[in-house]
Amino acid sequence: MLESVLQRIDNGLEGSIERWADLLRIPSVSTDPAYEGAMREAAQWLRDELAPLGFRIEIRETEGHPVVIGHHEGPGDDATHVLYYGHYDVQPPEPYAEWRNEPFEPTLENSPHGRKMVARGAVDDKGQLMMWVEALKAWHAEHGGLPIQVTVLLEGEEEVGSKNLRPVLERYRDELKADVCVVSDTGMWDVDTPAITYTLRGLLYTELTCRGPGHDLHSGFYGGAIENPINGLTKVLGALQDGQGRVQVPGFYDNVVEPSDEELAAWKALNMDDAGFLASAGVTTAGGGESDRSLLERVWSRPSCDINGIIGGFTGNGAKTVIPREASAKVSFRLVPDQDPDRIIESLRRFIDDHTPAGCSIELTVHSAAPAIRIPTESRYLKAALSALDAVYDREPVLLGSGGSIPIAAWARDILGIDTLLMGFSLEDDGMHSPNEKFEVTCFHRGMRAHAALLEQLR
Amino acid sequence: MLESVLQRIDNGLEGSIERWADLLRIPSVSTDPAYEGAMREAAQWLRDELAPLGFRIEIRETEGHPVVIGHHEGPGDDATHVLYYGHYDVQPPEPYAEWRNEPFEPTLENSPHGRKMVARGAVDDKGQLMMWVEALKAWHAEHGGLPIQVTVLLEGEEEVGSKNLRPVLERYRDELKADVCVVSDTGMWDVDTPAITYTLRGLLYTELTCRGPGHDLHSGFYGGAIENPINGLTKVLGALQDGQGRVQVPGFYDNVVEPSDEELAAWKALNMDDAGFLASAGVTTAGGGESDRSLLERVWSRPSCDINGIIGGFTGNGAKTVIPREASAKVSFRLVPDQDPDRIIESLRRFIDDHTPAGCSIELTVHSAAPAIRIPTESRYLKAALSALDAVYDREPVLLGSGGSIPIAAWARDILGIDTLLMGFSLEDDGMHSPNEKFEVTCFHRGMRAHAALLEQLR
Repeated sequence: MLESVLQRIDNGLEGSIERWADLLRIPSVSTDPAYEGAMREAAQWLRDELAPLGFRIEIRETEGHPVVIGHHEGPGDDATHVLYYGHYDVQPPEPYAEWRNEPFEPTLENSPHGRKMVARGAVDDKGQLMMWVEALKAWHAEHGGLPIQVTVLLEGEEEVGSKNLRPVLERYRDELKADVCVVSDTGMWDVDTPAITYTLRGLLYTELTCRGPGHDLHSGFYGGAIENPINGLTKVLGALQDGQGRVQVPGFYDNVVEPSDEELAAWKALNMDDAGFLASAGVTTAGGGESDRSLLERVWSRPSCDINGIIGGFTGNGAKTVIPREASAKVSFRLVPDQDPDRIIESLRRFIDDHTPAGCSIELTVHSAAPAIRIPTESRYLKAALSALDAVYDREPVLLGSGGSIPIAAWARDILGIDTLLMGFSLEDDGMHSPNEKFEVTCFHRGMRAHAALLEQLR
Repeated sequence: MLESVLQRIDNGLEGSIERWADLLRIPSVSTDPAYEGAMREAAQWLRDELAPLGFRIEIRETEGHPVVIGHHEGPGDDATHVLYYGHYDVQPPEPYAEWRNEPFEPTLENSPHGRKMVARGAVDDKGQLMMWVEALKAWHAEHGGLPIQVTVLLEGEEEVGSKNLRPVLERYRDELKADVCVVSDTGMWDVDTPAITYTLRGLLYTELTCRGPGHDLHSGFYGGAIENPINGLTKVLGALQDGQGRVQVPGFYDNVVEPSDEELAAWKALNMDDAGFLASAGVTTAGGGESDRSLLERVWSRPSCDINGIIGGFTGNGAKTVIPREASAKVSFRLVPDQDPDRIIESLRRFIDDHTPAGCSIELTVHSAAPAIRIPTESRYLKAALSALDAVYDREPVLLGSGGSIPIAAWARDILGIDTLLMGFSLEDDGMHSPNEKFEVTCFHRGMRAHAALLEQLR
């Protein structure tokens, strides 16, 4: 049954690209209230795309942006049941000035791999989720139905920490029950080597707000006598890591699982191009971490700490001698198995208290907290996905780790009791979250084919 | 000769207040181009006020707002020559809504000390400069001349950083030569205790820009492998001071002059109201500095370091997992005698290099560098000023330090080679730069008398 679906995908590529571009034109930036209308529009667009396949599908409200939930019974109760997850929200386009084109005017440009789509969300996650949507459409068009039971869950808050995803999973737990969750929001090894991501770092995202004087002060009259909240904040932040990037919060590394010898050997066999990785970041030296470990090991299996934003005081041109009344920083931690976010939050709280200078206070806000995940290599669904990739690509698929986190993977495990197949098609240079984000058309095309092959494997 | 001048000042108080109010009605806000006409009007008003005394006086253009420069030969070449400095520009009235009256409609209100003038510029610096203008007028009216040689320099950019003052001093160096500079832009100890400010901290104002990756990165995929410039910047900033606010740049304290036992004893005798000082900053604990030293000692005689501004990465609401390509901070150091800004800059440069983590780099920009000022207590001009204050007030004058810096004092020393007498009459609660700025009529009145007494001392 697969061959004709693949034919249809190949012949219908330009139509798929047009629908992908239609979705990209909707500026669904979840972090900015100005885009609230666009958020709803994107949710409706996806609902309307899936409904014709026979989905019972609707938009459900949350405390934040809505989710889209749909069901398709496929061939009946005995069939494998897949929960497809994607997110329809995107990162803000800032820094706007660095885009070659309007971020929400998708543009096809030439690339060494053929063509690429340039737009905010091109890959993350609109391009990736459209691959399974299009595969379902192609199967349905070819065979008048779907070969498995399908539930879809599309959220609009992945880029802002998926605050309402857990409540949604808990509230609709029975409705969302499936055998396995399938997500395309990860990467390939390279443009020709498909991959399944089997480990993901978790994410603890916090904000530290340091407060001092009751109002802004003149640093001449008060400097040296009254604590400056920026001084206080940077004192704490500067102490968070040692010179090798090791996090100094007590107990931070207590439950960290070291990769096995087999894993280290497999990762070594990938022949990671360290220089290329560094070049993709625009640097020549790694720095910033545990230099006794390989780069792959560091991003796949080691926890880390990044200050993602900081602001306080006078930030215009020139000089102003102010002691501001507050300063704040966004501080996130990437977590690995089996670190416990809750224990780390408690220890971080004590660490901050211990390091805050007299005369100011620091408030800790937790934006989100998700532990790392790891899919067992013996899972039959993981094997099915590897077979699907094998059927579509010339090169054998590989198993990857990822430094990023995908909240659904942890919560599908915790709340629904199922594993998540992370079958993604992005490339390292796709510029997710950056200006001129892009997705290769060849990745999009072969990704649709792989999703069709997965349907065949699971039916 | 003084007694009749003082009589004239006392009898003419209401007339002096009227002229003071006339100047306050001119909204000479230097930072706002909308007030450019008012700036010129204020300069002309002061020129026209002094010209009738026999000043050769004119408005001179600069790159920004004009200066007023005038000369009066007094009794001739052998007489003491004083350069009076003042600034005719004021701060913007914002936040406008918090004013009880129109900021440029000067209003006399009752105060615990009698009457007070409420207006923008009431004290800073229009009220203060009018005291010496009125003293010169009274002397002239009484004796048909001035007892000393006088040069006046009135600038219009003090509230925006005195950008063109140094060029003016350099360009008119010969013309502005005098024996001593006299400025009223500082404060009294309290309403009954007159003061001369004899030390001013210097200011080294720098900016640190930390650069890492070539573009913004996703902290999931790169965190732990690629150095984060905010992590790098806060690492350096956090190391700048120890837990007691002591600056860790090597050699920073090398040339710091400790206050003498006499000075410490004199400061102690002032019975500084520490709780009141803290309350004025809206705090209950000092913190932020060398806790083994008194607050007065810390702001008058100890160097300090304040981060006046910091920015980097994502600073909006919520969460964004970005490793930004750069972050920057404005870092200033208050300097005391005999710290050398140039040596400190060199050492700071090395300190930054030593503490910058691999994988990022920090550029140091110096916005300004002015050493501290200290007028020798044996100066005959300082003694003359103290005698003048003694003649007018019941309480003995005191010598104060100040944590702030006054550009004219440093540049008069560096460019003209003369000391500056800082004889000011403001009170701590005058609300300079704030809504409802005021100046006590009793301070204004006795300030005029003191300036007349200074003329007597210097003739």
